[in-house]
Amino acid sequence: MARVQVGIFGGSGYGGSELLRILLFHPGVDVAFVAANKWVGRRVDEAHPNLRGLTDLTFSGFESSLQIEHLDCLFLGLPHGRSMELVPGLPEDLKIIDLAGDFRLRDGRIFEKYYGKAHPSLDLQKEFVYGFTEINRKALVKTRRVANPGCFATAVLIGLYPLISHSLTRGRIVADAKTGSSGSGATAVPGTHHPVRSSSFCAYKSFSHQHLPEIVQTLREVTSSWDGPLILQTHSAPMVRGIFASIYCVLDRPTTAEQIGEVFEAAYDGSGFIRLVSSPNVAWVKNSNFADVGWAVDGRDLIVFVALDNLMKGAAGQAVQNMNLMFGWSEETGLRSPGGHP
Amino acid sequence: MARVQVGIFGGSGYGGSELLRILLFHPGVDVAFVAANKWVGRRVDEAHPNLRGLTDLTFSGFESSLQIEHLDCLFLGLPHGRSMELVPGLPEDLKIIDLAGDFRLRDGRIFEKYYGKAHPSLDLQKEFVYGFTEINRKALVKTRRVANPGCFATAVLIGLYPLISHSLTRGRIVADAKTGSSGSGATAVPGTHHPVRSSSFCAYKSFSHQHLPEIVQTLREVTSSWDGPLILQTHSAPMVRGIFASIYCVLDRPTTAEQIGEVFEAAYDGSGFIRLVSSPNVAWVKNSNFADVGWAVDGRDLIVFVALDNLMKGAAGQAVQNMNLMFGWSEETGLRSPGGHP
Amino acid sequence: MARVQVGIFGGSGYGGSELLRILLFHPGVDVAFVAANKWVGRRVDEAHPNLRGLTDLTFSGFESSLQIEHLDCLFLGLPHGRSMELVPGLPEDLKIIDLAGDFRLRDGRIFEKYYGKAHPSLDLQKEFVYGFTEINRKALVKTRRVANPGCFATAVLIGLYPLISHSLTRGRIVADAKTGSSGSGATAVPGTHHPVRSSSFCAYKSFSHQHLPEIVQTLREVTSSWDGPLILQTHSAPMVRGIFASIYCVLDRPTTAEQIGEVFEAAYDGSGFIRLVSSPNVAWVKNSNFADVGWAVDGRDLIVFVALDNLMKGAAGQAVQNMNLMFGWSEETGLRSPGGHP
Amino acid sequence: MARVQVGIFGGSGYGGSELLRILLFHPGVDVAFVAANKWVGRRVDEAHPNLRGLTDLTFSGFESSLQIEHLDCLFLGLPHGRSMELVPGLPEDLKIIDLAGDFRLRDGRIFEKYYGKAHPSLDLQKEFVYGFTEINRKALVKTRRVANPGCFATAVLIGLYPLISHSLTRGRIVADAKTGSSGSGATAVPGTHHPVRSSSFCAYKSFSHQHLPEIVQTLREVTSSWDGPLILQTHSAPMVRGIFASIYCVLDRPTTAEQIGEVFEAAYDGSGFIRLVSSPNVAWVKNSNFADVGWAVDGRDLIVFVALDNLMKGAAGQAVQNMNLMFGWSEETGLRSPGGHP
Repeated sequence: MARVQVGIFGGSGYGGSELLRILLFHPGVDVAFVAANKWVGRRVDEAHPNLRGLTDLTFSGFESSLQIEHLDCLFLGLPHGRSMELVPGLPEDLKIIDLAGDFRLRDGRIFEKYYGKAHPSLDLQKEFVYGFTEINRKALVKTRRVANPGCFATAVLIGLYPLISHSLTRGRIVADAKTGSSGSGATAVPGTHHPVRSSSFCAYKSFSHQHLPEIVQTLREVTSSWDGPLILQTHSAPMVRGIFASIYCVLDRPTTAEQIGEVFEAAYDGSGFIRLVSSPNVAWVKNSNFADVGWAVDGRDLIVFVALDNLMKGAAGQAVQNMNLMFGWSEETGLRSPGGHP
Repeated sequence: MARVQVGIFGGSGYGGSELLRILLFHPGVDVAFVAANKWVGRRVDEAHPNLRGLTDLTFSGFESSLQIEHLDCLFLGLPHGRSMELVPGLPEDLKIIDLAGDFRLRDGRIFEKYYGKAHPSLDLQKEFVYGFTEINRKALVKTRRVANPGCFATAVLIGLYPLISHSLTRGRIVADAKTGSSGSGATAVPGTHHPVRSSSFCAYKSFSHQHLPEIVQTLREVTSSWDGPLILQTHSAPMVRGIFASIYCVLDRPTTAEQIGEVFEAAYDGSGFIRLVSSPNVAWVKNSNFADVGWAVDGRDLIVFVALDNLMKGAAGQAVQNMNLMFGWSEETGLRSPGGHP
Repeated sequence: MARVQVGIFGGSGYGGSELLRILLFHPGVDVAFVAANKWVGRRVDEAHPNLRGLTDLTFSGFESSLQIEHLDCLFLGLPHGRSMELVPGLPEDLKIIDLAGDFRLRDGRIFEKYYGKAHPSLDLQKEFVYGFTEINRKALVKTRRVANPGCFATAVLIGLYPLISHSLTRGRIVADAKTGSSGSGATAVPGTHHPVRSSSFCAYKSFSHQHLPEIVQTLREVTSSWDGPLILQTHSAPMVRGIFASIYCVLDRPTTAEQIGEVFEAAYDGSGFIRLVSSPNVAWVKNSNFADVGWAVDGRDLIVFVALDNLMKGAAGQAVQNMNLMFGWSEETGLRSPGGHP
Repeated sequence: MARVQVGIFGGSGYGGSELLRILLFHPGVDVAFVAANKWVGRRVDEAHPNLRGLTDLTFSGFESSLQIEHLDCLFLGLPHGRSMELVPGLPEDLKIIDLAGDFRLRDGRIFEKYYGKAHPSLDLQKEFVYGFTEINRKALVKTRRVANPGCFATAVLIGLYPLISHSLTRGRIVADAKTGSSGSGATAVPGTHHPVRSSSFCAYKSFSHQHLPEIVQTLREVTSSWDGPLILQTHSAPMVRGIFASIYCVLDRPTTAEQIGEVFEAAYDGSGFIRLVSSPNVAWVKNSNFADVGWAVDGRDLIVFVALDNLMKGAAGQAVQNMNLMFGWSEETGLRSPGGHP
């Protein structure tokens, strides 16, 4: 396996932290640099003390990261809105995996509605493949640009893609999703203040979460006749890692759990990170790239449950899964490890 | 205020624990006895060490609790299935508040379906008033028998009652509810093993939770033309106390958040424990009898959020609220205290 | 009971939060105002949503709190260093209870060493009684000024006072103390960021915690011949509330657990908030003003364990206990309630 | 690297869980069988759902595990007291790593005092090397039998070994140690019931923890003149993983932090899993085999802090580290991975 040179922009956050946890041990990769403007010159293991003894890297700034010319692949782990400014200035042949939402949406008006600003480089969006690995492998193998999905979007799409691709549902779908505090990022804010968050459960961003349009766009590309509507409601749960999505559908006709199982098995045959189980639980996917899927049926009512780790399959793990495909490697390279029990 | 003599059957569990935390300080009440067969003869503060220094009570057994003849009110905090055996042998004029599910359902077949056994004393059920205080105050003032609602039922009914009573919804309603580990009771079981539960989020009892039929029965009594369907999905969250319910409805016509607010304000005017807020959070109701309600609207889509403490408004707190009405006291007596922040 | 007018400076923090949770329901008190400069004009229940429906107070600023002239008692819940600037300007006959460290230490050099600044009003310090209630009741009844102890100091003093007052120990004492995240205050900071704090256990302020000198000063006033040394090491534990102190002493001579028990019983006879138990646990004191004390002995080795709630007996609870004495009430007034189980 | 055949007795507990998480991905190892009498015939990933998709192993019983004749190495992850019955019947040339306490202590009377039963096969104890890797590498390379240290013992020894080996301390040493709930094992018991444990902090086994004598025995073998005494006090903290030990020593003479640092650097030079840091924190070692060590000095007072993961460096991780040495591999093989941040 030839070693490729990768860089990370935005390496001090949790996305960067998880990228490093994977990439420092990936057999095909050298981490050429990690950039984080607020940490320039400081050791990477100051921001990520779990990595002490495992790397001597120091943070560079974005400007000083001119090693880009010798780089094979760049991960962008920046806050929403930064990638769309940076990408136009990056080399055309550089492989780029953007973990932010900047290049996921094709429609500039929808982008502006959900992200609150105009998109300055929307023309570049069409070069990006949406990195929901399990449905876009063929395109991912060939692309130089990946828009990595949002964490909630990944969870909801894993649950809905098999159903929508077979047009099994009718009418309104409700996706009730819950996330841990790591989804809010590495910066201390009131919503992640330990004394309150430890006993908090609350809803946020009703009807307006920015992951909603990428789900809708993807499902419509799968089945153009699908017209939703999809209600996505996100919640803060008092845990650190994990997303749990409960997705409520009405089926076209009464169906058995076994029949639903066949649909999911067919859809995810060969997808080693999707595990079909009787009762998904965040406890069994945390710290891993696995997504566990289960379901319950009652006549025409179907509930699909998806559990995944928001920082792994919901961010850095899926990003590396996509990188593996872009470089022609097995998509499981560097990712085939479980989280702990307990 | 004349002091009345109350007893508790099943005082070693969390329902009993919270009843004691309230009743020992209630200005109208003497706790005459606390029965728990496995703890007979031991001090109550051995089971509930938070009460050390606040009571010298010891547990009696059910059989030895013959003080019943001098009792004014008996709380039954037993596992489902015990009350229906005990109640027929209790004095007719004794006020009884049953925290279990035994006397909530009017239909024996539905009881058997959800509780897995035949009901031996269903004829007595009609003497019981369903203790969802906010809609049944008039009946509660006059009754000697209360079937205290289930925790999930309380949360969902608080959210749905104003809407259903005005026939504002159309079609399927989805109630996605999450509970803390205290809902599983005081006995250590695998599902509440700290190493796993601390990072667990999972669903359970799809389409089959025993609180579903009491919600449906209550809403149908409110508006006989309402025919659901109602999907109730319960989840285990990695917190100790609290229920958070997200209730997804389709409205009859496009409505504003203000209009929904007027409906809730009218419904809960004079209900001191229901607080209408912008964003309910378990953190602000824990350890208290308050239920916080919020909502979001988008055209005809409405999501109602309810947060409450499963052991308080969802069990012992509402039970005492009902007792207060039964004895002619203000329903807030002994209950008007906040939980802590944080 | 005549109602007295109390005010709070610094009412938006956790000390203020707990003061309000107690004082709003205290039978002898009206809360005249709550001041917090950053919240002026906003409702108190915005900062403390647990209090919704229980108060209509709004925050005032310090300057606008000129109701001070009609005030009977002022609680100062400000960051260290503010009280010593404010107190000289306050009316002489106003009762003041300072929750900060400003007036605990008699020696200006020691104050400067531990608090990092010179004390501008040290001459006023001698008017303050150190508010470790259990040993200073007589002085508290008569004083107009109370320096309320630090949370760690309260825990360690509860464990050591009976031993030192009888000169039972010899040589070095080690106090290993652990606190929950609420001890860091209501402002989100990196050390209380939920994703990290949830799995954190670490030590801080070795040999330099500002609560050390107030413990030493108090014990020397109890027994002038006691000369320590005392090692105090504080730790951050991944819980919200509570302090647990393990205090390691060497006894003058081999002693039995029963003999130690007699010493503690005698010392805390009549002290309703000190409970002598076999194994203290933060779980049983959280949200309450109780401090649970236990011990283990092996020959001349003694370990004393103290569990208390850092915001209650370690701050606001003890402050109200002291206020009760200052106004001639039972010290338990408004405080005699348990925390919940669970 | 030749692949060796390993088996696990007691594979359903947390030690077994972590052994599998490491060994299934270890480049030199095939897991030949996993035995757990209560799970015979069931899939390993039923007990450890984190391993779904990563193994098809099923549990065997101890009796049916007669593959032992073709086995190279057997891990014993059984409750204390079982290994000492099993080992006499196992083949002489089989490499055995015992995670229980059965073969750690040389003195039968001390074993009986701390483990509450007589040792039936104490003569075999002398064949066992105590598996505190960092001091026993030479013996571990040559042995066929390893008594893997206890979790608390590992933490305390890491902190004390460099000091005692240079005779730097005088008199009494206090080790105050705190552990997460995973230390109590995989079976739900009252002490690990989530509703209570989530807010619990308490002490247990004062002066009587079974890890005390193995620490004392090891330190005396390091420096025969060392005579303690050592006080070990263990605590339950409301976290899942991790041990944090605070070790209080009195130094022979005033020493600087730098001088202590030199002692630790010399002692652990070449020990890749011991990291010397300014402030150890369980958060940075969880899920990894690293132990972080820090210290604070004030004149002759020294406090050493050690943080490690009780299931990794404190159990399964160190066991594999020892296996690596026994088979002539780098001790880091299969273990050089960080835990996550957060």
